[in-house]
Amino acid sequence: MDERSFSHLDEQGSARMVDVSAKAVTRRVAEASCRVVLERETVDRLEALPKGDARVVAQLAGVLAAKRTGELIPLAHPLPLDQVDVEVEPFADEGSGGAGVVVRSRVVVTARTGAEMEALTACAVAALAIYDMVKAVDRAASITDLRLEAKSGGRSGDYRRKCSDSSAGE
Amino acid sequence: MDERSFSHLDEQGSARMVDVSAKAVTRRVAEASCRVVLERETVDRLEALPKGDARVVAQLAGVLAAKRTGELIPLAHPLPLDQVDVEVEPFADEGSGGAGVVVRSRVVVTARTGAEMEALTACAVAALAIYDMVKAVDRAASITDLRLEAKSGGRSGDYRRKCSDSSAGE
Amino acid sequence: MDERSFSHLDEQGSARMVDVSAKAVTRRVAEASCRVVLERETVDRLEALPKGDARVVAQLAGVLAAKRTGELIPLAHPLPLDQVDVEVEPFADEGSGGAGVVVRSRVVVTARTGAEMEALTACAVAALAIYDMVKAVDRAASITDLRLEAKSGGRSGDYRRKCSDSSAGE
Amino acid sequence: MDERSFSHLDEQGSARMVDVSAKAVTRRVAEASCRVVLERETVDRLEALPKGDARVVAQLAGVLAAKRTGELIPLAHPLPLDQVDVEVEPFADEGSGGAGVVVRSRVVVTARTGAEMEALTACAVAALAIYDMVKAVDRAASITDLRLEAKSGGRSGDYRRKCSDSSAGE
Amino acid sequence: MDERSFSHLDEQGSARMVDVSAKAVTRRVAEASCRVVLERETVDRLEALPKGDARVVAQLAGVLAAKRTGELIPLAHPLPLDQVDVEVEPFADEGSGGAGVVVRSRVVVTARTGAEMEALTACAVAALAIYDMVKAVDRAASITDLRLEAKSGGRSGDYRRKCSDSSAGE
Amino acid sequence: MDERSFSHLDEQGSARMVDVSAKAVTRRVAEASCRVVLERETVDRLEALPKGDARVVAQLAGVLAAKRTGELIPLAHPLPLDQVDVEVEPFADEGSGGAGVVVRSRVVVTARTGAEMEALTACAVAALAIYDMVKAVDRAASITDLRLEAKSGGRSGDYRRKCSDSSAGE
Repeated sequence: MDERSFSHLDEQGSARMVDVSAKAVTRRVAEASCRVVLERETVDRLEALPKGDARVVAQLAGVLAAKRTGELIPLAHPLPLDQVDVEVEPFADEGSGGAGVVVRSRVVVTARTGAEMEALTACAVAALAIYDMVKAVDRAASITDLRLEAKSGGRSGDYRRKCSDSSAGE
Repeated sequence: MDERSFSHLDEQGSARMVDVSAKAVTRRVAEASCRVVLERETVDRLEALPKGDARVVAQLAGVLAAKRTGELIPLAHPLPLDQVDVEVEPFADEGSGGAGVVVRSRVVVTARTGAEMEALTACAVAALAIYDMVKAVDRAASITDLRLEAKSGGRSGDYRRKCSDSSAGE
Repeated sequence: MDERSFSHLDEQGSARMVDVSAKAVTRRVAEASCRVVLERETVDRLEALPKGDARVVAQLAGVLAAKRTGELIPLAHPLPLDQVDVEVEPFADEGSGGAGVVVRSRVVVTARTGAEMEALTACAVAALAIYDMVKAVDRAASITDLRLEAKSGGRSGDYRRKCSDSSAGE
Repeated sequence: MDERSFSHLDEQGSARMVDVSAKAVTRRVAEASCRVVLERETVDRLEALPKGDARVVAQLAGVLAAKRTGELIPLAHPLPLDQVDVEVEPFADEGSGGAGVVVRSRVVVTARTGAEMEALTACAVAALAIYDMVKAVDRAASITDLRLEAKSGGRSGDYRRKCSDSSAGE
Repeated sequence: MDERSFSHLDEQGSARMVDVSAKAVTRRVAEASCRVVLERETVDRLEALPKGDARVVAQLAGVLAAKRTGELIPLAHPLPLDQVDVEVEPFADEGSGGAGVVVRSRVVVTARTGAEMEALTACAVAALAIYDMVKAVDRAASITDLRLEAKSGGRSGDYRRKCSDSSAGE
Repeated sequence: MDERSFSHLDEQGSARMVDVSAKAVTRRVAEASCRVVLERETVDRLEALPKGDARVVAQLAGVLAAKRTGELIPLAHPLPLDQVDVEVEPFADEGSGGAGVVVRSRVVVTARTGAEMEALTACAVAALAIYDMVKAVDRAASITDLRLEAKSGGRSGDYRRKCSDSSAGE
């Protein structure tokens, strides 16, 4: 853990939106991911459907949510985004027996801040949309390992999650 | 896994919003939870702050998001909610060394459907709001185990997650 | 044209939202349709795509917009909807040579008013979403014949557009 | 029809939001129009009202909707707009006997994309707002010929709809 | 001041949305008002305009905001409203020399709670819309005396502000 | 009062959103304030609560509303904001016996317009959120003196309200 201070919280713990007006406008990219953990049978049934609407529903839910991050996260800045990309893919880990759907997002923005919360919000809401479709058949479904995978273009330097971290879909 | 069909997906896999007009109006309650996994030091620093604004920011983010579930989840029904309650609490597991913040939500609605997606959405967005505040000091933060804890009042009967499941905050 | 007065406009022409509190809560259903008129080649190219994402994007755009009708139409009442169904289908009229996509919506609501504007809004926004995807290849695309097809459950009696009217997709 | 590819659809037909971060920021202007086709008597009654609130309701509905285009059209980019102008005017075509209201919009934006979908969305929602006010007296009302009239400032060059096209309000 | 407790705050001061599911569904009506205080000359110039668009802009801003009260006020319940009525009228007090615009709202809802915050939100946002139009000519404009005028239908009994209170527009 | 014309109203009184595309992008800052007038006992009870959630609820309501100013004020431009800061503080005027809560906001934006309406909207909605929490114990609560305190960075020069004006919280 570094010595930097909390975002949006001052030393007293009071919540304050950060003033970004002095920061440079740069092209920022962030990638995030999460997994919807399902029973193996649920994944098989989803895969067996002739049409892939479920995938598109999840992608669009994620894209639309990313565009509204500034409304959802109280102290996040409202931003015009250059791109939001959401991918949804089934996974089945033969070793652990775990199965489900991986959600990956990538957000590009040219602004004084941003991309990270937008990428995470895209994944979270895409995963919730999948949950909404499977909930009647798989009540123990859960959403897990929602996290930042990579980030670039910001003042704090580029970042990529280390390989030793357990990672979505590997 | 039971024999029921997917919500919002027909046998071809086409996405369709369920028609709930024939269902009874009942009082429905759902509880959900998730964890924001943080470094122990991050939790300690949050706890040491004189003011608890971070907790309130997360709670309100969750409450506001639950009210907008029908906008975020494409095939969810828009609903007038009777109550949304979100709680945020630090945890530290001496055994595993894991630490972070538990988010718990409870949503009450008197309607033909609902409460489950609203409770999950509340937890997800409350957790994202916490992430937004700690992200500068704890980049490996992740959101995990977002799931339904209990549900009652719907046609499919009452449900409570089994104790044998690993559970948030225990 | 009948003798009834304008909705939301009094005799002076002043805009006023109608008070529906004295009306009965009934199950109301409305159907609407419109066409996106395209070049025949555009329709063929859309049809030749392996994946049907364009259809799902349009459907979801329509469903989501219907849920927000009360935000878009200034004097419309905000309503919890029981169902929104949007269908998108290519058409090619051999006689006239016209081609494009038909959008049809059906909205169910149990309330004191509603369904009609929601069904029309669903069609309009679904059609705009299609336009958004084809605009780079077919600049003369237009959206036409957006209208109510049928309505039932309201105080003014049931309605179905007469067959003699030129109708979408026939 | 030109050889360009669909917006937001790749060669497989998968929906993807276009990445505009490499495009130049330019001043973009788009104009759109549509017609609300009404019975002649409806137009006369609207015109006879002492106050012009109906016109203002439609204009504002259009302006507000244009500002939210990025929320309504799933793959459209959220944009800060420089101006949205919506005009509403009655028309009566002595030749064809057709009558109604013409809606025209003009949107200005300084950005990497945009103006076209915003101008079309403004017209569509303004027209729906008019429909909402006349629907009780003119059930056969329809919205037609929603289309782009002109566009400038983008990478694909300037565009103006050809005169030979049948056009709103001529 | 009575002995009742704060809404949405428990004895510790923690914010909690009230659970209204046990309350009866009743028809509730609330009226609110406020004033936009302007220079006399500003009011005269507004009144001299041939068209009354400014009034309609303010009315619609108020109506639309009332419908979104549950999104704006964090702990307010989202509600389907039966009616929102907003009136805007110039005033000039010969005695005090004060002048400006009075905004009055009336909201009807059939629900377990509500109407009061919706009526106040309608007035506040209508007044802000007026401010937005006059701000370039009257920088000292202010909005004042935003308050509840009357309320009925709720569990706490009917209420009407006492005449001895200084009141908008008298 | 100066000779400048109304914003968003032309000489006929027709409402039009101003075209800001020719204006320079500058850093703009605006400050606003208002007061929630309460009974002295209400302020004392609020102050005696162990937790300060009420303050945070009001601050966040204001921040979130400022970010959505372009949706609430019909002719305001949608803007990406650099910062929104809202402060809430009790006051008690020993002379007049008046008491309540002062709300102050500060908005920073780098754009072609803006900050003023955003700062006022932040104060208005923060004050409404306070009202929502105290309304059950203090029905005569009112919101007053909502006004611009200072503005800089725009074409019309810097502005600060004169000291001789009665001012919030003095």
